[in-house]
Parts: sequence; C-alpha cells; structure tokens
Amino acid sequence: MTKAELKNLKQLQQKKYRRLTQSFVVEGWKSITEFLKAGFVPQKIWAVNLPGTLSSSIKTSVNLVPMRMLKQASFLKHPKDAIAVFKMPSAKKIPAKGFILALDDLQDPGNLGTIIRTADWFGFKHIVCSENTVDCYNPKVVQATMGSLAHVNLYYTNLPKYLQTVNMPVYGAFLQGENLFKMSLPKSAIVVVGNEGNGIKPQTSAFINTKITIPKAPGAQAESLNASVASAIIMQEFFRRLY
Amino acid sequence: MTKAELKNLKQLQQKKYRRLTQSFVVEGWKSITEFLKAGFVPQKIWAVNLPGTLSSSIKTSVNLVPMRMLKQASFLKHPKDAIAVFKMPSAKKIPAKGFILALDDLQDPGNLGTIIRTADWFGFKHIVCSENTVDCYNPKVVQATMGSLAHVNLYYTNLPKYLQTVNMPVYGAFLQGENLFKMSLPKSAIVVVGNEGNGIKPQTSAFINTKITIPKAPGAQAESLNASVASAIIMQEFFRRLY
Repeated sequence: MTKAELKNLKQLQQKKYRRLTQSFVVEGWKSITEFLKAGFVPQKIWAVNLPGTLSSSIKTSVNLVPMRMLKQASFLKHPKDAIAVFKMPSAKKIPAKGFILALDDLQDPGNLGTIIRTADWFGFKHIVCSENTVDCYNPKVVQATMGSLAHVNLYYTNLPKYLQTVNMPVYGAFLQGENLFKMSLPKSAIVVVGNEGNGIKPQTSAFINTKITIPKAPGAQAESLNASVASAIIMQEFFRRLY
Repeated sequence: MTKAELKNLKQLQQKKYRRLTQSFVVEGWKSITEFLKAGFVPQKIWAVNLPGTLSSSIKTSVNLVPMRMLKQASFLKHPKDAIAVFKMPSAKKIPAKGFILALDDLQDPGNLGTIIRTADWFGFKHIVCSENTVDCYNPKVVQATMGSLAHVNLYYTNLPKYLQTVNMPVYGAFLQGENLFKMSLPKSAIVVVGNEGNGIKPQTSAFINTKITIPKAPGAQAESLNASVASAIIMQEFFRRLY
C-alpha cells in the first residue's frame, strides 16, 4: 500500500471525497464478499489472506499486505482482515410499487446501518433517503449493515418532492396515529420514518396520507422508540401481511 | 463543583467504581427528571438551570454551576444542562410470572440502552442479564435509554443457573426455530437473546425449551438481525398477543 493509497483511504472517510471519487470503503472479507457477489466493482483490495471462495480473477487483483498496514488504514477500532475500495453503483430509478421505506433526515450512522440490515432480512430492497440523511457510504453505516448494503438500494433525493409526485399511498410514523398492528395495509406503500430528535419535518409531513403509530403499553412512560427499532417494527408488520 | 467531585464523576465512568460506590451518573434534566419521578435518590445534582417542574426540596439541593463546568465533567460529546449522581436501587427479586427478556452476554451499550427503551415502551419491566452483559449503568447505556432505565428493572445474575431453577417456559432466539409470528405464545415466558457475535452460549442454551426464529424473506441474504432489533420484534410479538 503506497502513501498515496493510504491517504486516499483516509480521505474516503469524508462524504465530500466519496462523492467526488464515486467510491467507498468496505472492511473485512465477510462484507467485501457480499459486495463482490452482488456485482459491485472493486477498485482495489488489500488483505492479509485470500479466502478460498474467491474467484481467480479477484484473487489475482488482491494486494497481500501485512496486518500492521491494514491497521494503519482501517477506520475500525478492531481492524479486519481486508480493506476494499468499491465503485458506487450508478443511480437507479425508484420503483413505482412494492414496499418503500423513506427516511427523513435520519442522522445516526448506526441507526441507518441497522435499518439497511433489517430491510435486507425482510426482503425490502428500496430505501429512499432525504438529502440530509446520513450518507449510506459513511464507514460507520457500512460497518453496521454487516454486508447488507450490498443487497439494498438507497436513493438520496428531495423527499417532499418525491412524495408529491409518487403514485402510491404514503404513510408516516408518528406518536399519534392509527394502530399499526390493527390497520389494513396495502402491499405497495411508502412509509416515512423521521429524524431521531425531531421526527418528520412539516414539509415532508404535508405529503403523508395516513399517520401510523406503534402502539404503546397502557401507562408506559417511554416517550418514543429508537428510529431503527421503529423502522424494524414497521417492516416486520408489512412483511407479515405478505405471507 | 470541587476537584474531588469532578474526579468522582470521571471515575463513575468505570464499572468497578460504580459497583464500589453503588452509584451512577445521569446527564440532562429530561432523563434526571425521569429518575426523580421514579423515586431514585439523588446524591448530588449540578445544573445550569432549574426546571419549573422540580419539587422545592429537590430545587434547594441542586448546585447551580456554569456550563463550562458541566462540559468538563460530562461524558457526552454534546454535554447537557445537568449532571446527577444517583444511588443504585437495592436488588429486587425477579418476578415469577409475566414476560421477562433475558440477555446472554450482550456487549454493545447502545444495544442494551435501546432494548431498555423498547421494553419500557411495550410495558415489559423486567430484564435479566447474564453477568457478562454490559453494565446498565454504563454512561452509554444510560444515555441510550432516554430515561427508560428509570422504569425498567435489570437483574444481573448467573443466567444458566437462573434458567435452571425458574418455573416458566424458556424461549430462545435462534436462526433456526419456530416461526415467532405464527406460534402460540404464553403470557408468562422468559425469552433469551444472545450476544451480538456469538448468539446464545451452550451453557444457557441447555435450559431453553423452545427455539424461536424471526422469519426472513425467501431468498434474503442478511445473516442475522441486530440484537436490539431482534429483541424489539420479540417484544412487540408478546405485546400484541396481550391485547
């Protein structure tokens, strides 16, 4: 690994630089393999070893380096056995049917990563994010997805504008709304989950047809649920209605 | 705030010191108020202001200090308006009926905090933790509970031993088991959720009567769910069967 490559890896921790180069970093063979299987194009891979499952064309492109070098380049507290730089996939069109989760200015990388992982589990492949939502290629997000970022499509867009033009029912998670567990739900729907502290912003709220609520135990004193937990409970509800 | 007090606050970030002094730190009036309402005994409170809702006896015990002092003492990136030291509640007996979540060596403070917050939402007041589970008075846990730690009882114990003696059905979350959404579930039950990386350890698993699984979409490639998400989905399932 050259000095320039090390510098490049460090710079890729910044969103600005990721956008500029249209590339992002994945650490650990377990996750890297998920991206390779999903057809992502690696620009460079450094590793301390070669898993037997790699295709021979990938194998020859891997740069074997000592662990101390990976440690230097890693963003993780506990560096893993490999680091790869991948090209971002080209922008796709948001599908016009099915279940779509929409995130309104979600800020916490761990929350977004967990949401992507949960979406992957329940087979929901599309997440629309407001432009101010934390970048899905942020290393903390990539890390928290445990490889699921390779299977789920994220679309960053002007969320109110998107909701205004879309031809699907739009739901939103609020503290006051219809009981999620008891209401009827369509197969095609957009569900908006808001920012950790402020919920859904008024400009987005304006395009929500139906407010939904995760019911709370009578007398319970918790004020709200964590955004990744709320998203998970909403997704399991749409999932269980499909089967 | 004296130098000795500042040192004490810093030391309370360590589990050893918290156990020794049987006290823990809560930051921000919003959370502190939850602990006061729940009957926790404050040993000391420092704050930049006095909320109008405080009882007069508490008000007189608050030490008003400048923000720069709270900043020095705070463990948070964005320090809040108050810091309090509370006495830990005395040990209680684990109830013999109702829903009990059991955590087997959960390590991530954010996960435990989120689980406590979700339990509070669904009205489940009892969480049994293996001795190696992250301490619930860890400042990151306290922070992630958003005040819910004041409403939920945590019991640290030898988990296999507890499960061996208990007179309730014991469920465990596994990747292979009965479909959680379709199986019948009793009102009184213990459900074990395992460590983030290794799941439930064999010594604990030996006392589990029924393995449960959160169903995954056909063809989905995610290997597992985040521990706080899995716990949330299990809790919402037991909750919805109650109403």
